[in-house]
Amino acid sequence: MKVGILGFGNVAAATIDSFIANQDLIRSKTRAPIEFVHIATRTPSRAQGRVPAGCIVNDDCLGLVDDPQIDVVLELMGNVKLGRELVLRALSNRKHVITANKALLARHGEEIMERADDVGCSVLFEGAVAVSIPIIKTLRESMAANRISSIIGILNGTSNYVLSQMSEHCVNFATAVADAQRKGYAEADPTLDVSGEDAAHKLALLASLAFGAPINFGAVAFKGITDVDQTDLEVSGQLGYQIKLIAQARRGPEGMSISVQPTLVPNRSMLAQVSGSMNGIAIQGDLLGTAFLYGAGAGGRQTSSAVLADLIELANRGNLKKSEGAHNMGFSSLDSLQAEVCYCKDPIGTFYIRIGLDDKADTLSKVSTVLVDGNVSIKAQHQNRGHGALSDLIVITHDTQSEQLRQILSDLQKAAGRDQPPVIYPVLGDCGC
Amino acid sequence: MKVGILGFGNVAAATIDSFIANQDLIRSKTRAPIEFVHIATRTPSRAQGRVPAGCIVNDDCLGLVDDPQIDVVLELMGNVKLGRELVLRALSNRKHVITANKALLARHGEEIMERADDVGCSVLFEGAVAVSIPIIKTLRESMAANRISSIIGILNGTSNYVLSQMSEHCVNFATAVADAQRKGYAEADPTLDVSGEDAAHKLALLASLAFGAPINFGAVAFKGITDVDQTDLEVSGQLGYQIKLIAQARRGPEGMSISVQPTLVPNRSMLAQVSGSMNGIAIQGDLLGTAFLYGAGAGGRQTSSAVLADLIELANRGNLKKSEGAHNMGFSSLDSLQAEVCYCKDPIGTFYIRIGLDDKADTLSKVSTVLVDGNVSIKAQHQNRGHGALSDLIVITHDTQSEQLRQILSDLQKAAGRDQPPVIYPVLGDCGC
Repeated sequence: MKVGILGFGNVAAATIDSFIANQDLIRSKTRAPIEFVHIATRTPSRAQGRVPAGCIVNDDCLGLVDDPQIDVVLELMGNVKLGRELVLRALSNRKHVITANKALLARHGEEIMERADDVGCSVLFEGAVAVSIPIIKTLRESMAANRISSIIGILNGTSNYVLSQMSEHCVNFATAVADAQRKGYAEADPTLDVSGEDAAHKLALLASLAFGAPINFGAVAFKGITDVDQTDLEVSGQLGYQIKLIAQARRGPEGMSISVQPTLVPNRSMLAQVSGSMNGIAIQGDLLGTAFLYGAGAGGRQTSSAVLADLIELANRGNLKKSEGAHNMGFSSLDSLQAEVCYCKDPIGTFYIRIGLDDKADTLSKVSTVLVDGNVSIKAQHQNRGHGALSDLIVITHDTQSEQLRQILSDLQKAAGRDQPPVIYPVLGDCGC
Repeated sequence: MKVGILGFGNVAAATIDSFIANQDLIRSKTRAPIEFVHIATRTPSRAQGRVPAGCIVNDDCLGLVDDPQIDVVLELMGNVKLGRELVLRALSNRKHVITANKALLARHGEEIMERADDVGCSVLFEGAVAVSIPIIKTLRESMAANRISSIIGILNGTSNYVLSQMSEHCVNFATAVADAQRKGYAEADPTLDVSGEDAAHKLALLASLAFGAPINFGAVAFKGITDVDQTDLEVSGQLGYQIKLIAQARRGPEGMSISVQPTLVPNRSMLAQVSGSMNGIAIQGDLLGTAFLYGAGAGGRQTSSAVLADLIELANRGNLKKSEGAHNMGFSSLDSLQAEVCYCKDPIGTFYIRIGLDDKADTLSKVSTVLVDGNVSIKAQHQNRGHGALSDLIVITHDTQSEQLRQILSDLQKAAGRDQPPVIYPVLGDCGC
């Protein structure tokens, strides 16, 4: 099985290194020997001396995807626009594709999977989400008989590392990001990670696999961690919660809700144990009940584990050239399921609200009146001494529609008599573990 | 794809129920329709009215495995002797086999896999271990490129439930077992579970997949939970540990160690969070680092999730009749790896020792002398007031060879001046999470 690699960044280099280090093991597990024959990268000099004997290194990406001897293209460039063009062209040339590019799949996955299914080729992408957790294969194959009702995860290691640092070492967002950058857990420009967009890319893929619906990045509402305040990490800690960037897709009778946002996770949940740059995913299905999977979310070597597993899978297929209908997302008849897909815009849940109070005697009663008039029922209430006479009222609500809260937001602020609006976070509902 | 089922106990009935309940979903995920055509069971009356239209129900097991129209045999009887005969015969008739029978595979797996590989048929067994966790496929496929260094799990739900009850509700072993039986978490005869044998069956399968060695049940040393005393659950709880029945396979430079035994797990470990009848497995590999997987370990419906996933996998294969070399354990060349396999009989680790002391003034110093003379170095020490003047000395050792401890056991008891021998448990070493 002849393999070409597009790009030679961290993941590609680690894939080659791991393949060489474990080649005896890999050979004992594969029917067709895996042979790297071509690496196309903008900086061929980086790859010199690091590749297996007989592997060409140059910058000819088109030559690679058009080369008739190549069976499998590893797309490891990370670029969305160029990635899309090259992947579609490789598929049209009837090559199987392995990619770790979640942004590409989230934005153009439907087009790519359609092309792949049409030509009977595979697109494998275990390295695109939570690399040390086999979540793609698990959803597509191991849980195939289940109606999945929820998939709830910590999918972005950078954000989780930053929140863990802020919470454990009482540092602010900027300090924690700088620390993450120093340690290699954050990019020079961390926007894609801390904005929640990267987790949203990944969630779009998982929701598609879990619910048998086409990949639809546009359906994922996302909000990152840039505004998370130390105060809320501290206060929620006192109340028995941690704030995590939670990616959540649920399917209920009213439809689906798919979101990424900072969320209070009860300490007793396994998701609360996911700290530093790790990832964790809880899945609920009608047959299996609850499963929870935990592992590294990023890293060159960790990603090479997933990429090589995809390569070994292809090398163990009977006939690479055989062109029968492939079902790359694990489901074949979209139509029947698509009918079920509707987006539930206004999920019901429990919320954390922190309201800064001025120092007047009747403020607390005025705030309470707004909550009562807005039909927001209170499960737990806590007052936090701030600086001087000012204090914070912290409320955990009973089940409430987020829309209800939005409507009373300005009244709450007015009653509280402070400049800043109340801070609101959802509290994680049932995740089964 | 025509399927026959051997046996009609809980798992078989749940498999049929789940298949019927989710048949639209399953149809959308399979190329070849799955058709149940024959159920052979000692009690055909149990299956009447519960099976899909057109499915024969009788007690003719041999007729089923010899029936040329059947492509796949589901072995769900649980019997080892008869199971072996029927599975081997089904394979000789070139039928694929799906089984949840861990005892069968642990004891006769090598023979069965050899037969299957010879005839080019598959033996799938996701339902045999930790049913809601896709551990078989994960080890065989998703982690195929890794050198696995350890696999550490809580694999027996009954034992874990009993230990959780004893620890949380301060009840003794017999009471906890009776409670487990009432709630359906333990069999009328719980021996197979509480003796550690069931976990050892499962560990033999996992170690084989993880280390690329033939299944060898004889290599697994196992000890159950029947002797676990409430005192030790309580004392270890005070020291920040829980006692769990830990199944552990490690490969290091000195060889492999494979054991099932009650073990102290630090509270901070994810394995300590696995309570009640749940299962959890931590895996360490050279590429992926650490992964941890958690889910239900038993239950008819949960097992049906795994069994149906195996069926869907077969139904999505291009050609069921194609006979090329199958590698059912995920590795093909046993010889190269077998050379590495040697069993490390005397693992080094940290131990918990509880020594009952008599009420004499110099007892403590005599006991300490025995430990010092035996080269057992002490990491932490704690004295527990017992009834009257008697007390317990609890010691956590530094790294020690278990053989060293065994040698000083009778001297320790003599120095302590009490009737019962010291209680010793290993403390779980690094599991990465």
